[in-house]
Amino acid sequence: MTVTQRETSHAPTPSPDTDAPVGVWLNGARGSVATTAITGLLALRAGMADSTGCVTDTGMLRDAPLASWNDLVVGGHDIVDTPLEKKAESLVDSGVIPAPVLAAVRGSLPEVEQNLRTGYDARTETAPLAEVVDRLAGDIEEFRSRYGLSRVVVINVSSTEPPADHRPEYDDLDALTRAMADPDDKALPASSVVAYAAFQAGCGFVDFTPSTGARLPALEMMAQRERVPFAGSDGKTGETLLRTALAPMFTSRALHVLSWAGVNLLGGGDGATLEDPRNARSKLSSKSGVLPALLGEDVTAPLHIDNVPDLGDHKTAWDHVSFEGFLGVRMSMQLTWSGVDSTLAAPLVLDLARLTAAAHRAGHVGPIEELGFFFKDPIGTDEHALAEQAQALASWANGLDGRAGS
Amino acid sequence: MTVTQRETSHAPTPSPDTDAPVGVWLNGARGSVATTAITGLLALRAGMADSTGCVTDTGMLRDAPLASWNDLVVGGHDIVDTPLEKKAESLVDSGVIPAPVLAAVRGSLPEVEQNLRTGYDARTETAPLAEVVDRLAGDIEEFRSRYGLSRVVVINVSSTEPPADHRPEYDDLDALTRAMADPDDKALPASSVVAYAAFQAGCGFVDFTPSTGARLPALEMMAQRERVPFAGSDGKTGETLLRTALAPMFTSRALHVLSWAGVNLLGGGDGATLEDPRNARSKLSSKSGVLPALLGEDVTAPLHIDNVPDLGDHKTAWDHVSFEGFLGVRMSMQLTWSGVDSTLAAPLVLDLARLTAAAHRAGHVGPIEELGFFFKDPIGTDEHALAEQAQALASWANGLDGRAGS
Amino acid sequence: MTVTQRETSHAPTPSPDTDAPVGVWLNGARGSVATTAITGLLALRAGMADSTGCVTDTGMLRDAPLASWNDLVVGGHDIVDTPLEKKAESLVDSGVIPAPVLAAVRGSLPEVEQNLRTGYDARTETAPLAEVVDRLAGDIEEFRSRYGLSRVVVINVSSTEPPADHRPEYDDLDALTRAMADPDDKALPASSVVAYAAFQAGCGFVDFTPSTGARLPALEMMAQRERVPFAGSDGKTGETLLRTALAPMFTSRALHVLSWAGVNLLGGGDGATLEDPRNARSKLSSKSGVLPALLGEDVTAPLHIDNVPDLGDHKTAWDHVSFEGFLGVRMSMQLTWSGVDSTLAAPLVLDLARLTAAAHRAGHVGPIEELGFFFKDPIGTDEHALAEQAQALASWANGLDGRAGS
Amino acid sequence: MTVTQRETSHAPTPSPDTDAPVGVWLNGARGSVATTAITGLLALRAGMADSTGCVTDTGMLRDAPLASWNDLVVGGHDIVDTPLEKKAESLVDSGVIPAPVLAAVRGSLPEVEQNLRTGYDARTETAPLAEVVDRLAGDIEEFRSRYGLSRVVVINVSSTEPPADHRPEYDDLDALTRAMADPDDKALPASSVVAYAAFQAGCGFVDFTPSTGARLPALEMMAQRERVPFAGSDGKTGETLLRTALAPMFTSRALHVLSWAGVNLLGGGDGATLEDPRNARSKLSSKSGVLPALLGEDVTAPLHIDNVPDLGDHKTAWDHVSFEGFLGVRMSMQLTWSGVDSTLAAPLVLDLARLTAAAHRAGHVGPIEELGFFFKDPIGTDEHALAEQAQALASWANGLDGRAGS
Repeated sequence: MTVTQRETSHAPTPSPDTDAPVGVWLNGARGSVATTAITGLLALRAGMADSTGCVTDTGMLRDAPLASWNDLVVGGHDIVDTPLEKKAESLVDSGVIPAPVLAAVRGSLPEVEQNLRTGYDARTETAPLAEVVDRLAGDIEEFRSRYGLSRVVVINVSSTEPPADHRPEYDDLDALTRAMADPDDKALPASSVVAYAAFQAGCGFVDFTPSTGARLPALEMMAQRERVPFAGSDGKTGETLLRTALAPMFTSRALHVLSWAGVNLLGGGDGATLEDPRNARSKLSSKSGVLPALLGEDVTAPLHIDNVPDLGDHKTAWDHVSFEGFLGVRMSMQLTWSGVDSTLAAPLVLDLARLTAAAHRAGHVGPIEELGFFFKDPIGTDEHALAEQAQALASWANGLDGRAGS
Repeated sequence: MTVTQRETSHAPTPSPDTDAPVGVWLNGARGSVATTAITGLLALRAGMADSTGCVTDTGMLRDAPLASWNDLVVGGHDIVDTPLEKKAESLVDSGVIPAPVLAAVRGSLPEVEQNLRTGYDARTETAPLAEVVDRLAGDIEEFRSRYGLSRVVVINVSSTEPPADHRPEYDDLDALTRAMADPDDKALPASSVVAYAAFQAGCGFVDFTPSTGARLPALEMMAQRERVPFAGSDGKTGETLLRTALAPMFTSRALHVLSWAGVNLLGGGDGATLEDPRNARSKLSSKSGVLPALLGEDVTAPLHIDNVPDLGDHKTAWDHVSFEGFLGVRMSMQLTWSGVDSTLAAPLVLDLARLTAAAHRAGHVGPIEELGFFFKDPIGTDEHALAEQAQALASWANGLDGRAGS
Repeated sequence: MTVTQRETSHAPTPSPDTDAPVGVWLNGARGSVATTAITGLLALRAGMADSTGCVTDTGMLRDAPLASWNDLVVGGHDIVDTPLEKKAESLVDSGVIPAPVLAAVRGSLPEVEQNLRTGYDARTETAPLAEVVDRLAGDIEEFRSRYGLSRVVVINVSSTEPPADHRPEYDDLDALTRAMADPDDKALPASSVVAYAAFQAGCGFVDFTPSTGARLPALEMMAQRERVPFAGSDGKTGETLLRTALAPMFTSRALHVLSWAGVNLLGGGDGATLEDPRNARSKLSSKSGVLPALLGEDVTAPLHIDNVPDLGDHKTAWDHVSFEGFLGVRMSMQLTWSGVDSTLAAPLVLDLARLTAAAHRAGHVGPIEELGFFFKDPIGTDEHALAEQAQALASWANGLDGRAGS
Repeated sequence: MTVTQRETSHAPTPSPDTDAPVGVWLNGARGSVATTAITGLLALRAGMADSTGCVTDTGMLRDAPLASWNDLVVGGHDIVDTPLEKKAESLVDSGVIPAPVLAAVRGSLPEVEQNLRTGYDARTETAPLAEVVDRLAGDIEEFRSRYGLSRVVVINVSSTEPPADHRPEYDDLDALTRAMADPDDKALPASSVVAYAAFQAGCGFVDFTPSTGARLPALEMMAQRERVPFAGSDGKTGETLLRTALAPMFTSRALHVLSWAGVNLLGGGDGATLEDPRNARSKLSSKSGVLPALLGEDVTAPLHIDNVPDLGDHKTAWDHVSFEGFLGVRMSMQLTWSGVDSTLAAPLVLDLARLTAAAHRAGHVGPIEELGFFFKDPIGTDEHALAEQAQALASWANGLDGRAGS
């Protein structure tokens, strides 16, 4: 986007301490989160919005060697063909994108639109997965080459899948690769096909969803082999974010949490997806590790996700915490979070693109546990306390080597 | 307490890495917080309660050289003469002390009772403050001598006072001391008289209230001169505790807080005291610095404290946070805290006694900024973020020299 | 209870406009609700408590010809054998019965205890239901006769059962009676066996639970044949009570409710019972008719009941209402209810005993729809609006003929 | 408005059972409530909106002889000169008026604009009040005559004033009229000047604010003399609406409310106006009668109104109710109301115009107590229970004589 010669003022030219431009390849590029991220990035570059919600623009990461907003070029896959502009209009109607923001960047959307390709749809695909991967990786490589990108980060922001049942091939990359040649064997869930394609194309991968993605030993092996980084999973944007800020309060004050109940009401595509109990299982499982890790023990923690269509993207979560203090006296806390999911997720997607690209550039290989700050179910670490995660992130990112080349 | 020869098993004998016993002198010893602390300490020693709510018993401070519960001896001042036992019974009725706990320790209360002395009551006192200080300091010295205590920590847990108007003497210890000789000049508010007496007696001082206490340059000079530590002020037990856990979440996620409104409903003695707008001013002022320090800017933050007698010690606080995310989208969060004030405060009073005694022993002089973790308005530091305060506390306390003598 | 000659001052003597005493036969007499009702009734009679929570003592029903508290005699069935006194002690521990109340009435509990008989336990019973009914009805008749009661009201306060699958016999009393003679045919759920026995004994019946109870055409025929009244079902004590007060507000203001989500957290026996999804189905079904009836249309209304053991009898319910106003603008309301279930239910059980006895006496036969005020799923009416129910109750009860004899 | 010949289809033609058209004269016609009402009325007539929020379009009032939406013509006074269209645009920005609604009716706004006149501004006016009244009444009469209106209802929707100190003239219409001739005597607050002018012009008057308006004995005399009806005061749109739905629930269930605390957060013009404690006094006083009337006794009821500019017209209110049930057990309820004030008020303004015109037409003189349903502080009645108010309204309005002429 905005990389034609005509727009020299916005063209991504290398900044002093990076070798930009950097590609951001969104799997699920026509969804709410992706469309908000794309529109928002264009607005940032047009000076129509400030970077509220973007962690990478705060003082906390002031020394991290990150690509500038102007250095990011967006493309992606999706299995639907809703035009970006139409999707953006629906997000205006639902209060996620302000009308003046869309008006200001509407003219730039077609350039992103032309970078979008047809994704992998397990329900209709007939080719063996090996061919699918070749096609997906090819799309990404063509994008990288067309824009002369130093590197591309692939980010999964598509709908949540059910958990995958384990197979022996998941522990053995060669066996997995063989299985993928069989046209009758859907050996991998879609999110993992995307991760495989990302690694095959030599790209870093980020899973912003609770789907399987790169979380299979065979895929981790592949990331090591291809010398690429990956991160995930499941962006921490609402109720879980609050929990990782609050649970450490109870433990540091020696207050004994007895139960922590929660309910999430949301509509939109996410609400509909999670109404299917198989998909909800992935999300609930992703959220479920947080409290035991932070509290040091299991607590009664019923948790519900309800589809309430009228709420659209405006998620409302209620938590009730019952705890015990000195001499066994019972007390409680409640909180209600009214957040707009895509608004909270989109800037983190941009942050993760910048940070994963910087990690890739600095030679980081395999899971980036220091990105746990962004995730409900962080790969490679058991640290869930938000303040500790923020410190780990800052210390790591500010110390990344900005001179190294890809 | 429990120091007679008959009870040798509970007698405070020096523990390996401290030179116990240690005295805890409570100003306001017959109030709810003090009575809960006293009853709870006796219950801890009797094995009738665990130390839920006591930070000093957690793994976080496992290497701090602290006096054991058995090593603490309690005395104190108060201006009322309600028997401890009667006060404890009222706390059973209001749900702060479980009936079996009081039943188990009732027999030990008289020994604490005999360590209580008449405090300074500004409304009735006719002697010059210099004489008052001599009397108060004498009471503490007699207590220290009678029990052979290595040191005593004086902790103010009396009712909140109005803010004191500044006087030139507050910047000049000699001038202040001269003014205190004048029988017609109530040169210091009561909390500061207590701090003065503590320092004169060579004791560390902790202000658990938002009153003036040791927060005058002249008194800080006196602490330096007497080589004693002090800490404060205003124990962080509810709404403010939550704020210092949550506000950093917003800033670390680059979310822009627009307003943070709050209301506190409480009854009991605290409710009645704070119904007087002059007293409430101290409390509101003490709470008011937290948000600007954590958010980096002033936000609209209306805050109310209402006396609702039927709630007794069960404080209910509601906070409403309005914030802005990516592309200027507005979101909000609410929380309701239902806590029992004395239950939350009492274990911290015991923690502060142990920690201040350890600091005194290790040679710490003047304000202990590392105790900011416990306070709404921490002396000597602008750090309000709870996780950072916890780390500073742990790092400091675990590194204190436990071998040094008094 | 309290009917011996020794206690003449408390002995139930006929009041001018009733022919007391009246029996209250509780099915589930050793449960939390029953024990609270029994203890509370004794306390009312001993002058140890006022009748807060009892609708029949308010001005709204001042002209209803009701038996006095002194005129009520309590007996009952249960399938467990926990002594009433022990159960009452556990309710003191959980904050439902104040310790001084139990202390004051403890001496009167044994007289109620001796009126308790072994109930019907479907899991262990081997006799045909016809014999079971004879035994249960016999227990009630013996109780009535022993105390010379004018009439007895049987009230089901036992645990919630799963919904019963329909059988042809449920529409045909003779066929049902024949089926009950078959020792291998558990033709009726336990709550309906109790209703059958009540009717056979010539008693009115009230179902305070969402179980099947008298809600079968065959049993309604039986009530008509025996000329007895019945009422139910599922006492309205918390979240649903609020909904029936609030939903009419929205409709009378022409505000369009879009969704009404709810979650209930509770522990205790009820929490454990409702953790079984089969039992929860009865409760959820009982609650589910309220909103469509009040709002005039179906709305999205996810509803959860979670077992949170630490809450005990202290139920916490959260409701979130999303609604639309003028020009389609979206707004919302949330409410949190923190109630003690047995505390809310017990006085209504006493109210229903008095009111059903008065109806029986006045010749009311079949379902008493005017008691809908008390129930989530009122028999015989679709009126759920609380204010309308209160008016219907008052108008009916104040107009009952108090002179008629049984 | 929209009365030109070109738009015959929308022209106000007499409906069968009224002698329309009817004028609606808004004092404060350029404010948020008025602009929302005007825009909404145009949208209703254009078929761009349904009448959600309008009580007069519900089945409850189906037999009331009301003017149709097409029969209403709007004019008004204001002391500011912001163009209606500009105000409407700001209401689009703040989420009160949907953009497509404004787009659809924008072309009709100029016709309303030309019916707006300069109001009375006490801060700048130099003429005696008698002349002011003549001018204001003249404006209304000219409007009535120009459109051939059967009658006009004057509705005060301007900013809240401080309470007025009593003067002897307030009890004596002649004395009041004499005082108003004195150019140096601002004998009446602005809202009462408006009521005086309305009555002088032979119009009904409604006060939607807590200002003094017609609530002076002298003005009530004047209404009687001029044979016009009036109603008020202070539209019940949020927290108080909820209270009048919920407080009767507690009393009808014999639950003893101990305290009912509340806080209101709002921005916009109302927030700024009520930040002045003198203005807030009127509002707080208007709200304060509700709970004692409904609960039958005074309860602790702290209440705050805070200006939180970022919330704009989105008012958030939190209520905490503490209550006692059977055997003195304490329970609580909380509720949070997130409403858009102008959205809630505007349809009621339209309702009140239709109902007051119908009352005027049917010969109703003086206070209309049956309109208490709409107000926090209903004139002429102590009934605050919402359900009872709804019944009184329906019974009265459906029984109004629709044949009578003015």
